[in-house]
Amino acid sequence: MRGILDAIEMKRRGGTLPDSVIRQVVEGYTGGSVPDYQMSALLMAIFIQGMEYEETLALTRAMAESGARYSFPGCVDKHSTGGVGDMISLTSLPIVAACGAPVAKLSGRGLSTTGGTIDKLESIPGFSPNLSEKQMRDQVEEIGLAIAEAGDLAPADKAIYALRDTTGTVNSLPLIGSSIVSKKAATGADHILYDVKAGSGAFAKVAEEAQTLAELLVRLSRSLGIEASALITSMDEPLGNAVGNALEVRESMRLLRSESQGDLSGMSRSVASRLLALTGLPAPKVAVERAISTGAAYEKFTQFVVAQGGDPNALDDLPISKEMREVFAPRAGCVARFGALGVGRAALLLGAGRTKKGDEIDPGAGIEVLVKAGDEVEEGQPVARLYGERNAQRAEELVLEALEISDTAVVRPPLILESL
Amino acid sequence: MRGILDAIEMKRRGGTLPDSVIRQVVEGYTGGSVPDYQMSALLMAIFIQGMEYEETLALTRAMAESGARYSFPGCVDKHSTGGVGDMISLTSLPIVAACGAPVAKLSGRGLSTTGGTIDKLESIPGFSPNLSEKQMRDQVEEIGLAIAEAGDLAPADKAIYALRDTTGTVNSLPLIGSSIVSKKAATGADHILYDVKAGSGAFAKVAEEAQTLAELLVRLSRSLGIEASALITSMDEPLGNAVGNALEVRESMRLLRSESQGDLSGMSRSVASRLLALTGLPAPKVAVERAISTGAAYEKFTQFVVAQGGDPNALDDLPISKEMREVFAPRAGCVARFGALGVGRAALLLGAGRTKKGDEIDPGAGIEVLVKAGDEVEEGQPVARLYGERNAQRAEELVLEALEISDTAVVRPPLILESL
Repeated sequence: MRGILDAIEMKRRGGTLPDSVIRQVVEGYTGGSVPDYQMSALLMAIFIQGMEYEETLALTRAMAESGARYSFPGCVDKHSTGGVGDMISLTSLPIVAACGAPVAKLSGRGLSTTGGTIDKLESIPGFSPNLSEKQMRDQVEEIGLAIAEAGDLAPADKAIYALRDTTGTVNSLPLIGSSIVSKKAATGADHILYDVKAGSGAFAKVAEEAQTLAELLVRLSRSLGIEASALITSMDEPLGNAVGNALEVRESMRLLRSESQGDLSGMSRSVASRLLALTGLPAPKVAVERAISTGAAYEKFTQFVVAQGGDPNALDDLPISKEMREVFAPRAGCVARFGALGVGRAALLLGAGRTKKGDEIDPGAGIEVLVKAGDEVEEGQPVARLYGERNAQRAEELVLEALEISDTAVVRPPLILESL
Repeated sequence: MRGILDAIEMKRRGGTLPDSVIRQVVEGYTGGSVPDYQMSALLMAIFIQGMEYEETLALTRAMAESGARYSFPGCVDKHSTGGVGDMISLTSLPIVAACGAPVAKLSGRGLSTTGGTIDKLESIPGFSPNLSEKQMRDQVEEIGLAIAEAGDLAPADKAIYALRDTTGTVNSLPLIGSSIVSKKAATGADHILYDVKAGSGAFAKVAEEAQTLAELLVRLSRSLGIEASALITSMDEPLGNAVGNALEVRESMRLLRSESQGDLSGMSRSVASRLLALTGLPAPKVAVERAISTGAAYEKFTQFVVAQGGDPNALDDLPISKEMREVFAPRAGCVARFGALGVGRAALLLGAGRTKKGDEIDPGAGIEVLVKAGDEVEEGQPVARLYGERNAQRAEELVLEALEISDTAVVRPPLILESL
């Protein structure tokens, strides 16, 4: 089409693309009439010249409408921009479901240091993430919680993301924002909380970037008729102690059974009450505490696992690798930082994640970190446990590199940096 | 290769690409390891962020070295950035050869409103542009003038140009400059005059753009060891009276036989004396006048045509189309402008040029313009003659649209705007 060349030249000069042109380009690219080399030139022009809010919204809408679209009116969902050891979905969603807010989450598989939520749930023997829209709707109706693998959501976004990945056009705010919201809009929940990570283990290295992204996600969502809010949370260290699929499910179960405290516990409660607030529930914090202390949240998770074919007894005996090695503090001092990025890379080496589609995950592999910033350690004290049969030696080196020990006292930084 | 992604990201941020990276990218693209979609992202980043001189030079050198390379030490050549009715090569090169400066010109076929120099020469029955490098060298040795069709000159430039053409990245100064000089460097002449056109019929619409381009062409050439200078010339109206292949050869012959004056005559003399000055010849203007007035230049052209298989008798009876229609002035007044772009498009419609490789040219088709800016015309006076059997009606409309007639007197603007 001639339109794409006009669009490229317009954006190259810093102009504003009309809604109809953006839609034509997205449809042309998805349909094959716009070749990769023209799309990549346009993406580079967008990267450098930026996009107005209205253009970003038009791109989001066009990508959301490019494939399967679901509709779960009244349902809540959350989205995390990705971190290391992210158990927030596994914990907060059963809590809000137990408080009466229906949850319908469609999720993809992870391409990261650990699997995505679907991969984590699949470490529970028997669990199936394959539900039709009808089955999902019935399950939400019945028990208030369903998490399924998404079908061909926003295929235009998928194609454009793959191209961005190979053409140096990933880190563009309007492109990131439209990518995230187009997928969420296609999943059909109409109350969404965005958990935007900031720090070394996340896309946004500093809080300001995360704040700007969070504002864009909320604004785009609201423009598409979705109730949305956002938290900006720290991702300098892993959240919780577990990094890995079965390990994270085990830690999440402990939290839901009130068996653990710590940073994950506080964060899961905050996310759950923010989600409930989005639905208009009064006194959400009280409701959250009650759902945990009465066992209702854990009971809700068990119902959900059973409904999707999982073995509830397996929750007490998850398939965590028998191959375990401890890592010890090389010297005494105060932990300044147990870097999320390094720990994540080590977990990936052990087999907890995948770097490309189709890589096989070892559900039992991963890492437990035993110390965090602010903790005093003795020389030779265990600081982490490594699980899995792959690359244990190299993983141990990475974990030790990620551990910074200081001679002076360190105050643990806050986890929730901002909320909007 | 990983290098291309680094290169894209570096240029996207406005950085400077090292020589080795530019060479790697050009070789990778020509060799097929760098796909179109990555190259187009890089070209867009270059378009928007620009390139330093050293980068442009490295790109020029890498493209020049990507294919066949010729060497004609001591020879002169000229290059025009393309206009409408460009007979400067046909006239100035025989003049300088007659003055003793050896000319070795390798040329391509035109993708424009008329054919290129090779197409024009092929309108002479029997003329062949196919010479080996050895044949060309021998002919230069013997008669001092050879013009042949170039082989696979700078294939990297050819591939990159084709991509630029479809990705909105044509009008970038460093990309245009490196494209032109890479081809000229590969042709092997070591004295080159650039004729940079400015005006509606040219790439550079204003003189300042043409001046900047001319400076870049001269600087790049000198960096590559080529003696170079440049003229900036007007391309608001066609140069000379003929637009079309055989028509332009006929007008050139008239000039070489001192049978015509006019703008083409002055321009051809200027270009010839600038070329001779590049070789260090003293008093070049005197030499040029002598070569024309003694018939030496015409004699040289005839020798050259014979050497390349052409019929010298045909020069008096060129195959100009018998289908001719005159176009008349719609009203009386003073010609303000006979727009080059409109006349060029009309000539293209008549069959004088091609818009894509392989289009068949009608050597006899074209236009003679009979008036120029500053000329007084009566209503109904012939202002142009159209030759050829294709699209004559539409061509006439375009010619009439290109003719601006004013009620007040108009002074003809200068043709040579600047020289360096």
